Amino acid sequence: MPHELDSSRPDFAAAFEVFLDAKREAAAAVDRVVAEILAAVRAEGDAALLRYTERFDRLSLTAEGLRLTEAELAEAEAACAPETLEALRVAAARIEDYHRRQLPENLDYRDAQGVRLGHRWTAISAAGLYVPGGTAAYPSSVLMNALPARVAGVPRVAMVVPSPDGRLNPLVLAAARIAGVTEVYRVGGAQAVGALAYGTATIAPVDKIVGPGNAYVAAAKKQVFGVVGIDTIAGPSEILVVADGGNDPAWIAADLLSQAEHDASAQAILITDDAAFADEVRRAVAIQLTQLDRGSIAQDSWRDHGAIIRVGSLDEAPALVDRIAPEHLELAVAEPDALAARIRNAGAIFLGRYTPEAIGDYVAGPNHVLPTARAARYASGLSVLDFMKRSSMIACDAGSLGRLAPAAVALARAEGLDAHARSIAIRLNLSDG
Amino acid sequence: MPHELDSSRPDFAAAFEVFLDAKREAAAAVDRVVAEILAAVRAEGDAALLRYTERFDRLSLTAEGLRLTEAELAEAEAACAPETLEALRVAAARIEDYHRRQLPENLDYRDAQGVRLGHRWTAISAAGLYVPGGTAAYPSSVLMNALPARVAGVPRVAMVVPSPDGRLNPLVLAAARIAGVTEVYRVGGAQAVGALAYGTATIAPVDKIVGPGNAYVAAAKKQVFGVVGIDTIAGPSEILVVADGGNDPAWIAADLLSQAEHDASAQAILITDDAAFADEVRRAVAIQLTQLDRGSIAQDSWRDHGAIIRVGSLDEAPALVDRIAPEHLELAVAEPDALAARIRNAGAIFLGRYTPEAIGDYVAGPNHVLPTARAARYASGLSVLDFMKRSSMIACDAGSLGRLAPAAVALARAEGLDAHARSIAIRLNLSDG
Repeated sequence: MPHELDSSRPDFAAAFEVFLDAKREAAAAVDRVVAEILAAVRAEGDAALLRYTERFDRLSLTAEGLRLTEAELAEAEAACAPETLEALRVAAARIEDYHRRQLPENLDYRDAQGVRLGHRWTAISAAGLYVPGGTAAYPSSVLMNALPARVAGVPRVAMVVPSPDGRLNPLVLAAARIAGVTEVYRVGGAQAVGALAYGTATIAPVDKIVGPGNAYVAAAKKQVFGVVGIDTIAGPSEILVVADGGNDPAWIAADLLSQAEHDASAQAILITDDAAFADEVRRAVAIQLTQLDRGSIAQDSWRDHGAIIRVGSLDEAPALVDRIAPEHLELAVAEPDALAARIRNAGAIFLGRYTPEAIGDYVAGPNHVLPTARAARYASGLSVLDFMKRSSMIACDAGSLGRLAPAAVALARAEGLDAHARSIAIRLNLSDG
Repeated sequence: MPHELDSSRPDFAAAFEVFLDAKREAAAAVDRVVAEILAAVRAEGDAALLRYTERFDRLSLTAEGLRLTEAELAEAEAACAPETLEALRVAAARIEDYHRRQLPENLDYRDAQGVRLGHRWTAISAAGLYVPGGTAAYPSSVLMNALPARVAGVPRVAMVVPSPDGRLNPLVLAAARIAGVTEVYRVGGAQAVGALAYGTATIAPVDKIVGPGNAYVAAAKKQVFGVVGIDTIAGPSEILVVADGGNDPAWIAADLLSQAEHDASAQAILITDDAAFADEVRRAVAIQLTQLDRGSIAQDSWRDHGAIIRVGSLDEAPALVDRIAPEHLELAVAEPDALAARIRNAGAIFLGRYTPEAIGDYVAGPNHVLPTARAARYASGLSVLDFMKRSSMIACDAGSLGRLAPAAVALARAEGLDAHARSIAIRLNLSDG
């Protein structure tokens, strides 16, 4: 049974707090193992990478065999069903179109004091993309991680993907080709993260690593942070559906289960003001659970982490949504825009009764890499900006420097930074230049 | 003596690599201590915060005394020199003007398939600002960290600042008032970071923590990352000056020393194509070192981490600059724009002979919180965007959902995600809806 909360009950605030704080994932104690692997890859390069790949993926490679050839990638693509490839291309085109609109503008102006100011955006030089192997190998995630980098103008996008026992998912490789990934290496785990961060003889180092992975990969990304940039560490997927009684309960049940089927740690929450509707959704979930291929995973998720929150009025929803700060928020109500305007914290908002979250996972266009575990309070989904950086630009001439100098010198003096003051004063023949 | 490198020498590439990899800071082994402090603050709240403040700052407080009153802040401001306050106000106005231009635009459009797409930016709800005590207490840093949050629209900006033996810098408090900080607490160290992240009875939790600090503060920020957002961990300051022989060597020496005086781990580098000029700068540095209040700090920095890199032509500079990826880059050359256009990696670029880096530390307008330790390869200076987050928005109706459905359902099937496919199909009465 999912959690049941009712905002009209006196213990609601406390129960909601407990629900919010509940951990959905056990933190695996992998830090030490990962540190060892990273140190070995840093010191030994390819040799360590090959050794760990043999140990963890049961795959014996040479350095030359690490990188997939163009022929291998083309062969993989040829092995895919044409209609799936076509769907990937439709998705890629839509994702690219949306992300192009995120490209930022440079700034260059002269202010009233005659100082020229601005900023300039440039793409990072090389991005690393981690793609999990096995069941979590999603071609859609390859598109969602690689396309923003390509749109940003990153010249080099290096992908790593483990091939346990030599197996690779052809669709993942096809997605890499479609997304313009420039290099693919058949390695994974902390050792692949180390190779991307430190570089080996075969794999040149990158400047930033993105993409989801297991506990070892997440720990490795955290440990190399600073050597390279990383994206946010992703947690289990979440959906929060705010629905009035005007919805078909089977539709809402399907939406809740579309997150629950991801894994047993996923979370699906319904907020509604209609008690009878809540009961209907509960029954529809029970029925659909019996019809799903991944029904047992979805059942575990719904039972352990699912929740139905009853409110007296949907006016109460925005405050609860902002506390939950969901990765995905569906507003299945008559006036979704009005409700959305009152909400601050959500990774992506799906407006109205005909916008199931799953459409955003694949083809809508916005990124499906979104902040989880309440990070939507402060973080955003993956975007073109994650693959660019901004240099600020300042230019003075003697006149404008002279106009700024008194305040700057006063502050440098107040902070006891003598040489700071002097570097300004010396250009203007001021007293202590 | 600073490092000397010459790009015409056969061992230059190897020597440059060694120089790039040299560590400037010993990593203090503070993780375990910090973890204990954070756990105690999380479990005990104010009690632990007061206990650690007594131990580390030799200051006995009650929970009521943690927060500075309006009267205390006003009194601190009244104790400051009027001309310094005026300089702070000049700086604040210029910083605010520059940062207002960073405010991002929302996006809302309907595409060719009739799908409504977009994104919406909102400010985070509460920011925490760490301000170091003692000698590293810079009022300019209070402005640089707090003003972008205020411009972003963050309603609550809570500042923590340690007061060892009860001492506080009045200018830091005045800067907090001028920048619109909403709360100030006289606590510091890992315990203050814990209080901001987890909240106590007195200090409400924030969503993101920014600001510089010592090794304990940096470790604490890393450990609470995920509970809250954090900014980049700042390393020692750096300047890279690219200068031709047309500069006054004393000016360039002053610029190099303005970073070297920050601390002994700071780094100042000169790239020049003029050997005689390099010698003149070296001599000017030696003279000015004897004239600085912080000469001994600057001397240690220049001796241990400083460098003069001689190149055959300034055409070689962009590639070296991009490898170094400096926090601050001065282009003291005749045509700085042309050179800047060839450079990708720099936190802030100071163009021309009349733009000393120090003008950007105080009053130019752009932020002085910038990526250090080569992070400019992938990171940017602090901005309004660091205090906002973006929600993507998707809205379909039956028609547009129907047009996207075939590709989305095909991909969900290919990924084995049954319930994803169903949540789309069920709305369209497709086969397995």
